Amino acid sequence: MKKINILVLALLSALILVSCGSNGSGSKSSDTQLISQTNNNYYQGVIKKGHYVTSKSRGVSVQQNDNQLNLKGFENGLLSISKSQFPTDSYILQEGQYIDTSTAEKWLDRKSKDNPEGLNPAGKDTKEPMYLQQMDEQDFMEQSHGSLNIKGMTIGLGINSVYYYRKEAYGAVYQRKLDDKDVETQGKAIANQVLKRLRQRKDLKNIPIVIALYKQASNDSLVGGNFFASSVNDKGATSISNWKSLNIKNYVLPDQSNRDINSNDEDAFENFKNQVQKFFPNLSGVTAQAHYVNGNLRGMHINITTQFYGQSEVISFTQYVDAMAKKYLPNSIPIDIQVSSSEGIQSFLSRKTGNKDFYTHVFTSY
Amino acid sequence: MKKINILVLALLSALILVSCGSNGSGSKSSDTQLISQTNNNYYQGVIKKGHYVTSKSRGVSVQQNDNQLNLKGFENGLLSISKSQFPTDSYILQEGQYIDTSTAEKWLDRKSKDNPEGLNPAGKDTKEPMYLQQMDEQDFMEQSHGSLNIKGMTIGLGINSVYYYRKEAYGAVYQRKLDDKDVETQGKAIANQVLKRLRQRKDLKNIPIVIALYKQASNDSLVGGNFFASSVNDKGATSISNWKSLNIKNYVLPDQSNRDINSNDEDAFENFKNQVQKFFPNLSGVTAQAHYVNGNLRGMHINITTQFYGQSEVISFTQYVDAMAKKYLPNSIPIDIQVSSSEGIQSFLSRKTGNKDFYTHVFTSY
Repeated sequence: MKKINILVLALLSALILVSCGSNGSGSKSSDTQLISQTNNNYYQGVIKKGHYVTSKSRGVSVQQNDNQLNLKGFENGLLSISKSQFPTDSYILQEGQYIDTSTAEKWLDRKSKDNPEGLNPAGKDTKEPMYLQQMDEQDFMEQSHGSLNIKGMTIGLGINSVYYYRKEAYGAVYQRKLDDKDVETQGKAIANQVLKRLRQRKDLKNIPIVIALYKQASNDSLVGGNFFASSVNDKGATSISNWKSLNIKNYVLPDQSNRDINSNDEDAFENFKNQVQKFFPNLSGVTAQAHYVNGNLRGMHINITTQFYGQSEVISFTQYVDAMAKKYLPNSIPIDIQVSSSEGIQSFLSRKTGNKDFYTHVFTSY
Repeated sequence: MKKINILVLALLSALILVSCGSNGSGSKSSDTQLISQTNNNYYQGVIKKGHYVTSKSRGVSVQQNDNQLNLKGFENGLLSISKSQFPTDSYILQEGQYIDTSTAEKWLDRKSKDNPEGLNPAGKDTKEPMYLQQMDEQDFMEQSHGSLNIKGMTIGLGINSVYYYRKEAYGAVYQRKLDDKDVETQGKAIANQVLKRLRQRKDLKNIPIVIALYKQASNDSLVGGNFFASSVNDKGATSISNWKSLNIKNYVLPDQSNRDINSNDEDAFENFKNQVQKFFPNLSGVTAQAHYVNGNLRGMHINITTQFYGQSEVISFTQYVDAMAKKYLPNSIPIDIQVSSSEGIQSFLSRKTGNKDFYTHVFTSY
């Protein structure tokens, strides 16, 4: 009885998904469906034969990042870059289908006799730094006559700012800070090779390919790295001639070093933090990631950690944080605030770009 | 320089908080401020001398619950009961100020020569079960002429459904299921004593006192217990004459036992779960807490756990869950869905009572 139900439902759901395309006309091919957008900040995704189409190199980036903030920051940043070239209302995002796991692993390794495709310099680990640390491919599709066709691609290349290496297997980890100039030169050279290789694929000859370079944060950083250059390569182009520098920076607050964070922003956060910390007799940890584009604060992610002794405390604290955030934090930028205890997230507040009020949610349980 | 800023801001914030009362007129007393409501589902809270007024028995309930779901469920359920007697737009919630830690600990212990105030039966742990497991006091205040006065109180009493005990210190834990009839009889007798004792306090003689009884869930339950009786005791009343039974039940889905969950609700959840689980090649865990009042489903909390390999997967999965939730889950009831990986919460969806759409949020990082 239940099995039959499930079968019927699977068929029904296929029909439903087909009708989910944001423009009302779904894929007509029998085994491809689209995941509809919940808001226009996200792309529609692709389901084939009932399953999500995962990346052909799924999992490689997770292995490549000792600091998972480099993974999240990299992929989110790359999505932002993609959105300006391939708007979410015209394109469908399919996870990378051209660079598979074995290709990715070869490209991310050193060049050698056994691995001629390696995009990292030949040489010994102790002598020659590795530059290319991770790669992400995003495919942008359009739907016509019931099938999905690739119409654009974005490639992100994560270049190390610090090179970590061992002198012997399982030995101590050494580190070497890489020169910004080298990061840029090596990144651009690697990007050129990637573009050339992609153009050899028939499907990819005549589509625009965006390539963006990301400088990985160090393994102990509390915020990810940042994209520093991107290029849009029109159909057919096999070498990159038009690099555009990106002035994107991510910082952690409170800021111990003396970097170029706007001091008004820093004071605003400091005031917010002081207000929040005096709420309970016990200590609250308050840190933030601050996101700058062209020198202007464009977003904050704030983490508050404290100990709660009951649900009323969580509710009151959340309402208080809401009032203090509205009062002290910069206006009009998007801000996410996550409130956690040792038992996990307790509440969160989120304000979208341009909004005055925060959405607040207290996690409860029956 | 920074210290002066902070001082000025502390003073400013006191002024701001004073003006935060939902009716526009804040406390005039110099050291009391109110935390404004972010929505009318929550009470205003109380700040004195810059700090939140925590419960006088803060922390006792945390110690008393081996299963913290009994703590969250208990306090949330009690707030719901309070709201119907003391509306959030007329009353201010102050955490309990009359039952302090030492009193709570005495009351929660067994009655004995050393502890005449104990509300649990005298006797040996191996022979005589303990019934009263936790207590919560909520004070409801009104503001007049610049000061807060207590105008009502709610007391929750958590009564064990299973009694856990040891035969020797640090020995194995034994358990004994308690009879529903005994849970009710003992709970009501304890409630009567609590009311009598509270009426001896001058402030509490002439206010309504609500007392509600909660049946604690077992320590291995994936959902908290439930309130089964409540009474509103008008000013002056020193014994409870008007118990009202509450038909509130919380269940876990999927349901292994064969309890009286509405089979439509169960099928709806099962269909949702099947759709969600086939999205990725890897397994997703999907469980829910279902909240019933008078036999009707009144809310669900759904937990989905899966492994993600990137941010695009989280976004696509969240959009898919949104579509499946709208399609398969019961309409018009409030539903929270939390999506987590081994690294913590990744996204969440929430629909308030009566709404058609879910609010969705994907947690990101810079």
